[in-house]
Amino acid sequence: MKLSPVGYGRFLQSRQFNVEYSGAEANVAVSLSNFGIPTRFVSVLPDNELGDAAINALRQFGVDTSVVVRREGRLGVYFAEKGASQRPSKVIYDRGGSSISTSQESDFDWDEVFNGASWFHFTGITPALSDSLALTCLEACKMAKTKGLTISCDINYRSKLWNKEKACKVMSQLCEYVDVCIANEADAYDVFGIIAPKTDVEKGIIDPCGYVDVAKQLAERFGFQSVYITLRESVSASDNYWSAILHEGNVTYFSRKYPIHIVDRIGGGDSFAAGLIYACLNHYDPQNALDFAVAASCLKHTIEGDFNLVSVEEVKNLLNSNGTGRIQR
Amino acid sequence: MKLSPVGYGRFLQSRQFNVEYSGAEANVAVSLSNFGIPTRFVSVLPDNELGDAAINALRQFGVDTSVVVRREGRLGVYFAEKGASQRPSKVIYDRGGSSISTSQESDFDWDEVFNGASWFHFTGITPALSDSLALTCLEACKMAKTKGLTISCDINYRSKLWNKEKACKVMSQLCEYVDVCIANEADAYDVFGIIAPKTDVEKGIIDPCGYVDVAKQLAERFGFQSVYITLRESVSASDNYWSAILHEGNVTYFSRKYPIHIVDRIGGGDSFAAGLIYACLNHYDPQNALDFAVAASCLKHTIEGDFNLVSVEEVKNLLNSNGTGRIQR
Amino acid sequence: MKLSPVGYGRFLQSRQFNVEYSGAEANVAVSLSNFGIPTRFVSVLPDNELGDAAINALRQFGVDTSVVVRREGRLGVYFAEKGASQRPSKVIYDRGGSSISTSQESDFDWDEVFNGASWFHFTGITPALSDSLALTCLEACKMAKTKGLTISCDINYRSKLWNKEKACKVMSQLCEYVDVCIANEADAYDVFGIIAPKTDVEKGIIDPCGYVDVAKQLAERFGFQSVYITLRESVSASDNYWSAILHEGNVTYFSRKYPIHIVDRIGGGDSFAAGLIYACLNHYDPQNALDFAVAASCLKHTIEGDFNLVSVEEVKNLLNSNGTGRIQR
Amino acid sequence: MKLSPVGYGRFLQSRQFNVEYSGAEANVAVSLSNFGIPTRFVSVLPDNELGDAAINALRQFGVDTSVVVRREGRLGVYFAEKGASQRPSKVIYDRGGSSISTSQESDFDWDEVFNGASWFHFTGITPALSDSLALTCLEACKMAKTKGLTISCDINYRSKLWNKEKACKVMSQLCEYVDVCIANEADAYDVFGIIAPKTDVEKGIIDPCGYVDVAKQLAERFGFQSVYITLRESVSASDNYWSAILHEGNVTYFSRKYPIHIVDRIGGGDSFAAGLIYACLNHYDPQNALDFAVAASCLKHTIEGDFNLVSVEEVKNLLNSNGTGRIQR
Amino acid sequence: MKLSPVGYGRFLQSRQFNVEYSGAEANVAVSLSNFGIPTRFVSVLPDNELGDAAINALRQFGVDTSVVVRREGRLGVYFAEKGASQRPSKVIYDRGGSSISTSQESDFDWDEVFNGASWFHFTGITPALSDSLALTCLEACKMAKTKGLTISCDINYRSKLWNKEKACKVMSQLCEYVDVCIANEADAYDVFGIIAPKTDVEKGIIDPCGYVDVAKQLAERFGFQSVYITLRESVSASDNYWSAILHEGNVTYFSRKYPIHIVDRIGGGDSFAAGLIYACLNHYDPQNALDFAVAASCLKHTIEGDFNLVSVEEVKNLLNSNGTGRIQR
Amino acid sequence: MKLSPVGYGRFLQSRQFNVEYSGAEANVAVSLSNFGIPTRFVSVLPDNELGDAAINALRQFGVDTSVVVRREGRLGVYFAEKGASQRPSKVIYDRGGSSISTSQESDFDWDEVFNGASWFHFTGITPALSDSLALTCLEACKMAKTKGLTISCDINYRSKLWNKEKACKVMSQLCEYVDVCIANEADAYDVFGIIAPKTDVEKGIIDPCGYVDVAKQLAERFGFQSVYITLRESVSASDNYWSAILHEGNVTYFSRKYPIHIVDRIGGGDSFAAGLIYACLNHYDPQNALDFAVAASCLKHTIEGDFNLVSVEEVKNLLNSNGTGRIQR
Repeated sequence: MKLSPVGYGRFLQSRQFNVEYSGAEANVAVSLSNFGIPTRFVSVLPDNELGDAAINALRQFGVDTSVVVRREGRLGVYFAEKGASQRPSKVIYDRGGSSISTSQESDFDWDEVFNGASWFHFTGITPALSDSLALTCLEACKMAKTKGLTISCDINYRSKLWNKEKACKVMSQLCEYVDVCIANEADAYDVFGIIAPKTDVEKGIIDPCGYVDVAKQLAERFGFQSVYITLRESVSASDNYWSAILHEGNVTYFSRKYPIHIVDRIGGGDSFAAGLIYACLNHYDPQNALDFAVAASCLKHTIEGDFNLVSVEEVKNLLNSNGTGRIQR
Repeated sequence: MKLSPVGYGRFLQSRQFNVEYSGAEANVAVSLSNFGIPTRFVSVLPDNELGDAAINALRQFGVDTSVVVRREGRLGVYFAEKGASQRPSKVIYDRGGSSISTSQESDFDWDEVFNGASWFHFTGITPALSDSLALTCLEACKMAKTKGLTISCDINYRSKLWNKEKACKVMSQLCEYVDVCIANEADAYDVFGIIAPKTDVEKGIIDPCGYVDVAKQLAERFGFQSVYITLRESVSASDNYWSAILHEGNVTYFSRKYPIHIVDRIGGGDSFAAGLIYACLNHYDPQNALDFAVAASCLKHTIEGDFNLVSVEEVKNLLNSNGTGRIQR
Repeated sequence: MKLSPVGYGRFLQSRQFNVEYSGAEANVAVSLSNFGIPTRFVSVLPDNELGDAAINALRQFGVDTSVVVRREGRLGVYFAEKGASQRPSKVIYDRGGSSISTSQESDFDWDEVFNGASWFHFTGITPALSDSLALTCLEACKMAKTKGLTISCDINYRSKLWNKEKACKVMSQLCEYVDVCIANEADAYDVFGIIAPKTDVEKGIIDPCGYVDVAKQLAERFGFQSVYITLRESVSASDNYWSAILHEGNVTYFSRKYPIHIVDRIGGGDSFAAGLIYACLNHYDPQNALDFAVAASCLKHTIEGDFNLVSVEEVKNLLNSNGTGRIQR
Repeated sequence: MKLSPVGYGRFLQSRQFNVEYSGAEANVAVSLSNFGIPTRFVSVLPDNELGDAAINALRQFGVDTSVVVRREGRLGVYFAEKGASQRPSKVIYDRGGSSISTSQESDFDWDEVFNGASWFHFTGITPALSDSLALTCLEACKMAKTKGLTISCDINYRSKLWNKEKACKVMSQLCEYVDVCIANEADAYDVFGIIAPKTDVEKGIIDPCGYVDVAKQLAERFGFQSVYITLRESVSASDNYWSAILHEGNVTYFSRKYPIHIVDRIGGGDSFAAGLIYACLNHYDPQNALDFAVAASCLKHTIEGDFNLVSVEEVKNLLNSNGTGRIQR
Repeated sequence: MKLSPVGYGRFLQSRQFNVEYSGAEANVAVSLSNFGIPTRFVSVLPDNELGDAAINALRQFGVDTSVVVRREGRLGVYFAEKGASQRPSKVIYDRGGSSISTSQESDFDWDEVFNGASWFHFTGITPALSDSLALTCLEACKMAKTKGLTISCDINYRSKLWNKEKACKVMSQLCEYVDVCIANEADAYDVFGIIAPKTDVEKGIIDPCGYVDVAKQLAERFGFQSVYITLRESVSASDNYWSAILHEGNVTYFSRKYPIHIVDRIGGGDSFAAGLIYACLNHYDPQNALDFAVAASCLKHTIEGDFNLVSVEEVKNLLNSNGTGRIQR
Repeated sequence: MKLSPVGYGRFLQSRQFNVEYSGAEANVAVSLSNFGIPTRFVSVLPDNELGDAAINALRQFGVDTSVVVRREGRLGVYFAEKGASQRPSKVIYDRGGSSISTSQESDFDWDEVFNGASWFHFTGITPALSDSLALTCLEACKMAKTKGLTISCDINYRSKLWNKEKACKVMSQLCEYVDVCIANEADAYDVFGIIAPKTDVEKGIIDPCGYVDVAKQLAERFGFQSVYITLRESVSASDNYWSAILHEGNVTYFSRKYPIHIVDRIGGGDSFAAGLIYACLNHYDPQNALDFAVAASCLKHTIEGDFNLVSVEEVKNLLNSNGTGRIQR
């Protein structure tokens, strides 16, 4: 459950919170489902009305929730305050003791979970929630590999959930099983200590070329088939440049760079992951896959909430235009 | 009736719609009324509470609605989703079978409608709604001409209402009666096939000089006394440049160009029409008329809803300033 | 009481007003309290529920309201409409006959008011409300001086409350007692007729160097220990540049200049005053004090409402960053 | 301007106020206009956007506002908190110094005001606002009488605006000119000291028969042609019984009594006045006039806001039913 | 799409509408799904975002929408204003030309639609929308009968959609195939002319015993296996009594009668249908089935929106209590 | 933090939650503060913005929060859905691991906490949160007793927080120190097994006389000086009867019984406790104390949110009236 003040309200002044039931993997599932790809979400949710509401939130977009485990417990919560201009967005996590973080590997029937599936996606937020969940992730990766699924992982480092050392140790284990690695401009350094030259992320200075080497190192260290790195250049909390690179088959591809006036940036990375999974499942060539993923996630920034509520047609319209946003009537 | 998601919400996620009772000609009437010009609105509205609400929406700004015909039927609806950054605004029309589109020429008493009037304005949206309405428009033009009114027409091409061929045929007939033609950067090409050089509207590239020739051709083809062309350069759905040209008496006038951070762009063209009608009725010279219309419509982009809720004084304040929007206190 | 249309709504179209209980001096007190500085607010409020609500609004942030006088009367109101792009914000004052403006010097027990205090801050809005209030201000200054408090004054000229001649006369008297003078880019000219060269405030053209001389003249004329001048360069109602200078000990200090995409600019000057008072009470050196005040007030522009709801830590984060507003998670 | 917390919010907890532009006489005008009766509103409003908004609020329902005087000043405000169950509604008046209360008799051109009119209605709130306004009322009554208009007056005693002695003195003068007197269950006692037997208004105990004598005394003392008395039996702030009597031609008529579950009771009396004026203008016989007025005002209690937004047809539907509120579909 | 003013707002005063995607059969499907019964919805929806939103609205509650046909067209709309006390709720239909009403029998693949199903439910609203839809209904009934499904039909007469004669003719044909008939207190008379003695529905006077004969006549005329009649006694639009009878196997069963303080009564009948279908599928005996359906639909009246968002457990809690609504904590 | 759907929304359908920072003891403190009694709140809150917001929520009403301990942790949350008619309100607790429940006795400096205090109030919810908190409560009681404070305790049994056996054991220990015991109609049975004759709480049947013996047994078992028992007779979730008894000095006092149409019943018991503490501190005699407490808490039911936002004057107005809720103007 994501609770966020209305508009640009701060926690201190808010008497109403918007309620969403979202999360990194859920966001990817919903975006893919909106692209017409059948998806299934696996998690543990409490057996109360809040858990029901979470199920419904995914189900409305067609995500299959039949393998979600329900039992007593609490629903993990995070509070997110939207930033503006020089004021950064702020997140308060309250996920300790949630149903999912207290789950065991034995809670899941992997045959049922992966039944008919060809792709498994997870993010670094999940193993960060608890040790047992990290083990479950590992088991899921092994099972997925055994069953021949492609495995993608978004590194998604969150310093408020774990520290760099632990993240490095756990993610290194998991990455052994990963085919498609997704990272943002800071993840590779934060988790694996790989430095991008000529770049100062905090100051909004990013040199895409510097990330070619980062991607290479990642690919080599873990044997990734593809490495996608999203590059967010923060002008301010209201305006960002957004692009990405893809390193695959020893070639690096560069995307267009979009100047975005932000409506809501949370879920941007997840929508990128969904975009590339869609493209891969549809056998796009690397450049097109990268471009599709960047355009899809560019549009996410213009939509309130974590979910990327765009169709394939809308992504293609952006790819085929200058992004000038002319009205359709 | 215009139904639109709150804020930047998409149709898919909206549980509340803002309700407005607006429309191209209504918007012009309201803006003129806010400028202190007595206006009268002619249409057909259903004889139910929604029709009453539409009447009230106009009446509050002082528009005379006494000649509006009421009878059984439905109120035409359009759904409008506001775009942002790279995501375009989107419109869904649901106007089929509305009271106005099923009206006949015989529904109107032109003597009453035009009683005391000196100017008649209509837009290309009206004849697009139905064949019978196109005929009614034609009759209205003839009557207005007979009675010595100045006739202005905003081409306002809507591809979701009719196609280019039909639009060209019908609008060509109507334009025979028009004194003052108003078009946007795309209308002349869409309806009459007149190309503006060095311009790619979709890409947001517009050369005002290229439109001099467009205006001339329009003026020559239909004998317009004046041709106004608004020029919207779309940087994104959030930021546009806004300017216009006026061709009159074989001279072309150019306006200032405003960089606009958009609050709501729907109704921008209508507020331009109202601005120039106000200026003409007050005998402004061409340059001043053009400048007034552009400034008035620039301000519309900063106001929620279709109606331009600004006074003559506010338009003049903008004309006499740099548009730096300093607070007044 | 400040009543303002929701969002970018105009007075003409608003059926709901946001209600705040704020005001120049209250804003400073709240911001200081949020910085951890004990503050006390002195005023007169009506003895009804609206007065209670005003008390509560300050008390929630820890401001001491125990010396506020309560008695029959009305609460002063001002209506504020938020501008956007080329449309300026608009303020309608309705403060005539308010409890505070009809108060007498004898209403206050200065020993109690200043008990334990080391700093007294007021703004030019207060003496503008009534002649008796101007006298009360004068008395307060005398008492504060006697008791050894530092006195700061924000000139805060409001043309809708009094005219330049009267403001000059009254403020000149008060300034005799002031140690720290705060003015915006227009105040010195409006109240004291001191011109800043190479500057056209209305057009958004501001030369910080031109203000060095303004600050000097102010310091000399009234013997101020420090003169702070905030410099707002208006690109539009949506985008401003924000910086300030400080003249102290015959040296002029210049701040960083922030390009701000505005959420709400009202209270910007007050948050600047709070920032510098905080810095002075913590013995910052002049450059650091100026920088802190500018950064604090830059953040205010990103927050809805008059109050600057930021912590010292958040201001320091901005000082130590490029202001790129990266999310914290 | 009426400012009221949203829903059942108390002043102390409200951060948003609903904004209405209403008032006793305005409410009557709007309700009559909704019944299809042409009405004209006369008042003085400030020459600012708030005055404009007030004009528009009336104009939307078709009320003629052309004789409203505009000039500098403030708009009278009242704050109204809605009660529930045992908690009474609460009103805070802030009308001192408003444009209307500072107006002079000479501000009005009675020939224009009464041009074409056949009925003049005012309430006791207006003369309560200021002495000069009381004089203006008197003059208006004289002029109306001269021109042969029927004059109705709703006593509408407000203890927060004036005291009983003053009300008695002023209203007695005005009542000399009144043809149709309207009072509620408390007015006759509060203003003229006439006691209704077997009644304790505060305790919600009301004996309609006791009011026969009250009506008679009123009729005799001032020579009223008709006296209407509304009888509100308060069970609680949420539930009231509502009925009325009419004394005319020495006969007393009794209405049906409606048990009302209240949505918003403010404006109930005004909607009653509008109902009876409508009935009289349409030559209803006394019993039918009374019944229409009670049914109309019963419906007002089910509608948010001061204005009675019902049609004649809806009032008749209630008269012809048991008031069981069955859905229409 | 159902559009309704917020709260108790009237159409005339509403600037925001709540948006729901509901309808008689959809409501039944959602309620059953909330009871844990797998349901499938069949209809035709336009191939635009509004159709998508309608799909999502059902999908969120787990309703299978895979057989919904999508194609060009408009989404049927109805406007519903909530009544209070003596003011009835009001409905404006705008369903002409909707995708579903213009559909043909050939649009549906009945084998797919009824695949795995054991029960088919429809209401009298569907055949009322168009002649072709009535034919489609008939075909569906025939197919369902062939496949051995139980067929239930809620008569649901809507005078704004068709007249009594037509309804009688069409419904009589359809009823030949129906096993379980559901009617409200007025349907039997409105459609089939069967009078309930000692009852005046408009006046809120209902004698349950009088409906025994009505049920018998219905059962005999069409050979229904069961006839359920809901009995709404309207005290006012805010307060209703709610009960029902069941005639089955020549025995009539009576339910408890609930006094309901209404939150939202639309969808009450549909939730009753869902309740009895649930009970029948779970082989409840007649009295228990009736009681379950009445309790379930009693709870619907306490919930905003058309959908009955209650669980089986909540219905049972009501059955096992006095309905005193004590908090659970 | 209390999160609740807006209006009568269910968790399943809510996209916005109202946010309050309340709780049993906090509610008592705020209500007392609104009565003009200086109060101090002691608790442990997390050192983040949500903890700040909780502090501010109390501080706004003048509650002294200076002894609240701040440190890392989470803020306890509870979700509350408002019931209506036959649908009960529903609460979901999410308080596990909150800052307060993980606190130790050693966290508090009792000399500071009780400095200058004469009364200590706590409720049974606090010891229910954790074993360590139960110990802390015990220590607080001992310290308070030593310092000569009067100790009041509201039994406040919550079956979702602990079971009856544990509650009995812990509360029995604590009650040894309690002077003034407050219980509702179910607490004595739930915690101590004391049965009230002729009463069925679930069915809304309550015999006040039956509670005389309950109060006596409680007084005898624990040596309470006074025992207050509130008696809620639930007609439905929308309508309750509300009264109380007081047993003191071997005499039992009975209060008036209020029929309440409920706005929000949460916090009703807490407002009763505040009422009696106010009365005791002001030396009311037993009957008057009881009456004041019942009237105060009756009013709470008419106010949104947990806090009782009424003044002593408003309570007295209710005591001196029939509770008919007539408007004040």
